[in-house]
Amino acid sequence: MQKSVNIILFTDFTVLDVFGPVEVFSKMRGEYSINFYSEKGGIIKGSGNTEIVTAPMNEWLNSDVLIIPGGAGSRDEVNNYDFIEKIKSAAISAEFVLTVCTGSALLAKTGLIDNKQATSNKLAFDWVKEQGEKVNWIRQARWVTDGKYYTSSGVSAGMDMALAFLADRHGIAIAENIAHRIEYNWQKDKDHDPYA
Amino acid sequence: MQKSVNIILFTDFTVLDVFGPVEVFSKMRGEYSINFYSEKGGIIKGSGNTEIVTAPMNEWLNSDVLIIPGGAGSRDEVNNYDFIEKIKSAAISAEFVLTVCTGSALLAKTGLIDNKQATSNKLAFDWVKEQGEKVNWIRQARWVTDGKYYTSSGVSAGMDMALAFLADRHGIAIAENIAHRIEYNWQKDKDHDPYA
Repeated sequence: MQKSVNIILFTDFTVLDVFGPVEVFSKMRGEYSINFYSEKGGIIKGSGNTEIVTAPMNEWLNSDVLIIPGGAGSRDEVNNYDFIEKIKSAAISAEFVLTVCTGSALLAKTGLIDNKQATSNKLAFDWVKEQGEKVNWIRQARWVTDGKYYTSSGVSAGMDMALAFLADRHGIAIAENIAHRIEYNWQKDKDHDPYA
Repeated sequence: MQKSVNIILFTDFTVLDVFGPVEVFSKMRGEYSINFYSEKGGIIKGSGNTEIVTAPMNEWLNSDVLIIPGGAGSRDEVNNYDFIEKIKSAAISAEFVLTVCTGSALLAKTGLIDNKQATSNKLAFDWVKEQGEKVNWIRQARWVTDGKYYTSSGVSAGMDMALAFLADRHGIAIAENIAHRIEYNWQKDKDHDPYA
């Protein structure tokens, strides 16, 4: 059966946070069906004036994989109580939750990663930490896994994490094959972080 | 004055071909305005079920930078005469034309890069060559520049090329700064191509 990858968008999300992982998952040739959601549905504008069609989160299906990107808009959305509650419900029911960049600030606001390890974008790190003071934030990491939660550093790190996620589930050969097909120099060491 | 980056989408384009470069250009903080077009406008579906809002190409404005991505859909579109003619007009009037992956097959079909150097995705290379038999195809290259034309290899190579384009226009420090902010390991050597 196809597994679902559900992605939560919001105004001023960072497009590469989303479409790096989307490209990686789409290369699994039908094993994952990818769906885009936002709090209220409709067209959502991300970086670079990109307009993406989304479904509303009240049409939510259970996720095998939930992805939360970052972006300038996360600075407003951490204070959107209704949205954070919806993210929380979605994250609880998801089998795995992946965040990119400041997406971990939104996840931290739900309280679900209190006392868990997580990371985020290095240029926004101090602000992200304030969004979850009980989270065990790891500054030097390309990405961090703790149970069902995968959190990555800034933007491009989302591709490395998505490939690692598929390697964990399906074996490293499949992830290496995808990296080769998209001609991507996969940085496989989650602890190698020259941006910290 | 803001420069325009106009991107041509078609059904089954590869999202990372587009949103790698879009993220890079969007980090120029208002120096470039980014616009999405397709042959007839409306919502265009790319890889991973992504649905993007586009304007029709008859509302075309002159481009400072024209970007043509690749993707599975390019295999049909090379035979879409009207679309190729529209791409040709857009490319003639653009100051610079950038292609990613099999986007160079669409550009080659216009005849505009006959006798010029170009490259493309390595896994589709033989098919791409057939779309422009007078093009001087360079197999081993991360990207190739020839006059106003920049053509890149597969998918991720588009980010390296977009950063190189900005380095050529605005200096390498600005491109390095963007790579740092998106935590991207920019591969700056256009001739280094382990995928060939």
